[in-house]
Amino acid sequence: MQKVVVTGAAGFIGSNLVDDLLRRGLDVLGLDDFSSGHIKFIELAKKHPNFNIISCDLLDQKAVVEYLDGSDFVFHLAANADVRFGTEHPSKDLEQNTIVTFNILEGMRENAVQNIVFASTGAVYGESQIIPTPENAPMPIQTSLYGASKLACESMIEAYCEGFDFKSWIFRFVSILGQRYTHGHVYDFCKQLKEDPSCLHVLGNGLQKKSYLHVDDCIDAIWVGVTNANDKVNILNLGANDYCQVNDSIQWIIEKLGLSPKVTYGGGERGWVGDNPFIFLETNKIRSFGWKPQHTIREGVESTVDFLLENDWVFNFRK
Amino acid sequence: MQKVVVTGAAGFIGSNLVDDLLRRGLDVLGLDDFSSGHIKFIELAKKHPNFNIISCDLLDQKAVVEYLDGSDFVFHLAANADVRFGTEHPSKDLEQNTIVTFNILEGMRENAVQNIVFASTGAVYGESQIIPTPENAPMPIQTSLYGASKLACESMIEAYCEGFDFKSWIFRFVSILGQRYTHGHVYDFCKQLKEDPSCLHVLGNGLQKKSYLHVDDCIDAIWVGVTNANDKVNILNLGANDYCQVNDSIQWIIEKLGLSPKVTYGGGERGWVGDNPFIFLETNKIRSFGWKPQHTIREGVESTVDFLLENDWVFNFRK
Repeated sequence: MQKVVVTGAAGFIGSNLVDDLLRRGLDVLGLDDFSSGHIKFIELAKKHPNFNIISCDLLDQKAVVEYLDGSDFVFHLAANADVRFGTEHPSKDLEQNTIVTFNILEGMRENAVQNIVFASTGAVYGESQIIPTPENAPMPIQTSLYGASKLACESMIEAYCEGFDFKSWIFRFVSILGQRYTHGHVYDFCKQLKEDPSCLHVLGNGLQKKSYLHVDDCIDAIWVGVTNANDKVNILNLGANDYCQVNDSIQWIIEKLGLSPKVTYGGGERGWVGDNPFIFLETNKIRSFGWKPQHTIREGVESTVDFLLENDWVFNFRK
Repeated sequence: MQKVVVTGAAGFIGSNLVDDLLRRGLDVLGLDDFSSGHIKFIELAKKHPNFNIISCDLLDQKAVVEYLDGSDFVFHLAANADVRFGTEHPSKDLEQNTIVTFNILEGMRENAVQNIVFASTGAVYGESQIIPTPENAPMPIQTSLYGASKLACESMIEAYCEGFDFKSWIFRFVSILGQRYTHGHVYDFCKQLKEDPSCLHVLGNGLQKKSYLHVDDCIDAIWVGVTNANDKVNILNLGANDYCQVNDSIQWIIEKLGLSPKVTYGGGERGWVGDNPFIFLETNKIRSFGWKPQHTIREGVESTVDFLLENDWVFNFRK
């Protein structure tokens, strides 16, 4: 691995990965359309001589072919990562996830680039009956357009491994927290409390269980996985060993902020249609390579609040 | 169910389904782009007052919305069903399967049509370690672009069931044989023997195991499944209770044709990259509704040979 391409390089996880790969001495070309990524997230990287960033639309297949020329590894993190609003714009998951991933795979094939790391999600398990959920869980029923599109991407990647002798590392993430976090419930809660510190409205009943992972642990795990897992197709769950309830995270957030808001609930065990009340992944496989999280879930939530307090501009660049 | 749309209505399975639905007294609108379907397959249907056929490109999303107006059930069988040549044109499975299925789902949503029957495939199980393979097999690794695209379709359909309150019946077929069969190894063998009755070349070692189903049994099973399975998402394997080897089918074909060709083999347990040496599905679920095949695999092969002998024009309309 020498010259790598990172898609979604200016995004939450992507920009953290870029910093890590540069520290490891790699040449990194970042691609991002800056729809949910932000130039501030790659300020540090941009000072590095081995980093370049291109603002581009990955739906432009010809451009993708050009950008992948000369690289030997693609970390494909660009995606529509918005699980909740999938039903408001069904074409977005198809285009930004499924079709973009196809374009990446074709761009790789054109350039004889045969190694791909893919950021997938625990959402591909739908509402698994087996918890914690292992990588070889029974074939799930998809409950979100997001999960469906990510499984479509995984499937295409696997078929390219078989058909064109690619090698892949597919990481199925739980929700990730930490610096540069820009959407999800900690974001929503902090944003609400910034606007009105006296009340907080929670979607669902607050009992949804979440097994968050800190982004630093996520990035470590990606490196451990890529350098140790050696099959043609490597599928690896990433997550914490435990979980919290949404209500726990609310408590940690308001303690951290020194607030005592009135908390109201939308009710129901799901925050929205397709919300999974309990995602908790079995991570024995990645742990077998010596990886384990260095941060507790509470630390993850608190460091996210710290980041949001120090960077309140992130509340304004998204709708 | 009163007015139904059948996509791929002029295809092998689609045209047999159309005849069946008309016999059951339904109004049927057929859609087909005639890329692998054929007008001769719907000669009978066209004489029926309750049948209409539109030649159209299902990639045209606006047209799809128009065609689905007023129907209450969609049987979505249109697909690129060519497993073997997927790696020669990777975009075909994405476009003709994944994107077309998305267009159908959006067209249904626009018209408040909420019931969909989908023709999927045992190929979604990749090379399953569990044989016979049940519907809830462990999450597979895809080995063909065809299987990958069909799983992508299934996943989107499931997400629409959750997000938009659709109801779906997803049938995972083994290979189907019988009248109007136009591609697959029985077709290839008969075509070779028509051109030169003295020799037959077989891809792979001839030991690949195949669990074929007769198209009449397939059509029966679809009706039994749709009228009995009542979940939001119903996934049903369809296949025979047994299997043959490619060599068995060769024997039946050459006996039927009265030939004694010299048989040569390409070698290897797979006929091509991504060929699955053994697809055999567990069909307890559809059988629990009282369905069982009426034809043996040998009868399926022989009736296919009969069809091809009587309709040798089918050897010419495809490359």
